[in-house]
Amino acid sequence: MARSVDLLVLAVPVDALAKLLPHVLSLVNEGTTVTDMGSTKEVICQAVRGHARRRQYVPSHPMSGTENSGPSAAYRGLFRGRTAVICNPEESAPEHVQRVEAMYQVLGMRLTRMGAEEHDLHVAFVSHLSHVTSFVLANTVLAEEKNANTIFDLAGGGFESTARLAKSSPSMWGPIFDQNRTNVVNAVDRYLEHLHAFREALVSTDTGEQRDLMEQANQIRRVLEQIGSRRKGSPVKQ
Amino acid sequence: MARSVDLLVLAVPVDALAKLLPHVLSLVNEGTTVTDMGSTKEVICQAVRGHARRRQYVPSHPMSGTENSGPSAAYRGLFRGRTAVICNPEESAPEHVQRVEAMYQVLGMRLTRMGAEEHDLHVAFVSHLSHVTSFVLANTVLAEEKNANTIFDLAGGGFESTARLAKSSPSMWGPIFDQNRTNVVNAVDRYLEHLHAFREALVSTDTGEQRDLMEQANQIRRVLEQIGSRRKGSPVKQ
Repeated sequence: MARSVDLLVLAVPVDALAKLLPHVLSLVNEGTTVTDMGSTKEVICQAVRGHARRRQYVPSHPMSGTENSGPSAAYRGLFRGRTAVICNPEESAPEHVQRVEAMYQVLGMRLTRMGAEEHDLHVAFVSHLSHVTSFVLANTVLAEEKNANTIFDLAGGGFESTARLAKSSPSMWGPIFDQNRTNVVNAVDRYLEHLHAFREALVSTDTGEQRDLMEQANQIRRVLEQIGSRRKGSPVKQ
Repeated sequence: MARSVDLLVLAVPVDALAKLLPHVLSLVNEGTTVTDMGSTKEVICQAVRGHARRRQYVPSHPMSGTENSGPSAAYRGLFRGRTAVICNPEESAPEHVQRVEAMYQVLGMRLTRMGAEEHDLHVAFVSHLSHVTSFVLANTVLAEEKNANTIFDLAGGGFESTARLAKSSPSMWGPIFDQNRTNVVNAVDRYLEHLHAFREALVSTDTGEQRDLMEQANQIRRVLEQIGSRRKGSPVKQ
């Protein structure tokens, strides 16, 4: 079946992807474009380095999704206004890159291109780190709940928002953390530095430093507004 | 003006509240009920301990709100299905407690009662800690952005969700952290323990521990579903 298609999209956990991709590439016809939706790119690219059909493969990563996985997690507008990353485009033939970019454009996505190494570094900060902090927040509060059954009666929208990603699938995220280990651990270490600085400011009765750190964090508003306006301004072309 | 009202609701930052409340209580008539919406309760209760009109004051905390503050942050359904906490109800006269509870019920809120000390301990975990981790996530990623202008092109819904609270007002949150310092620092320290454990699991190439920690965190799903179903099942009575 894989032989007769124009575009083949692999959307499986990244450990399975690294194993599957070389075999799939060996099976497809010359005209077929192969892409993936994995959240890591270096290990995946390494898995097909030097493959005879490497130029038919276009490493990509649509920056969209929720804490849910599987077909039932789909919803209308899931990709709209989000960014799709194409990695190492010079290693793929232009017609295959164009086909994958056209697919993402139909879904209303913005496109960007970068090296696999750069991609893995950046997603460690803007995606993988958020998952770590959310898993850890959930574990902290669940452990506390053992001593206080009523604690979750008090949970509101703020908790919901920050703990949402803790529902994410371990089968999907284990392999991502595994393949992007160095960058994720580095992001966690940077986060730990900032957390220790914030803790010091909390402990101090001089509230100036605390205020400075919060005002600094407030600058995230421009980023979040930018994300929000992209989502509103990008109708699905179909 | 304060003299002739039935119910007076103070909704100001908790440092202003601690100063204002004793004066307001001294000004109101005998029949007036006074309540507040502050996110801390012990310091506020201490501010009116022994006040001649203490039984007219009902310490309360509606567990609702967003990262936005001020009148323009209001939206229809803001309180619906969330929990309102009444603290130390035995220190207030029953008719005043009833009046405050009736107000929250009109807004579609669930009611719970607890000691001010217990309240402050629990909100440190389910509310104040989420704000700390969100401020710190924003600071970490903003610092990284200095080295990489394109990093936020990649930010998706997950980042948006976990960093949202970092937009919160320092004028509102500084005094909350200040008044609930001991509990918040304790919550941060518990969080640090769980973060170090997660980091260790990330560093290890034995992925079993990592999976265990993620599966543990996944149990937050039942909590978040409970919160979600309350919101759906609670029409505003008006």
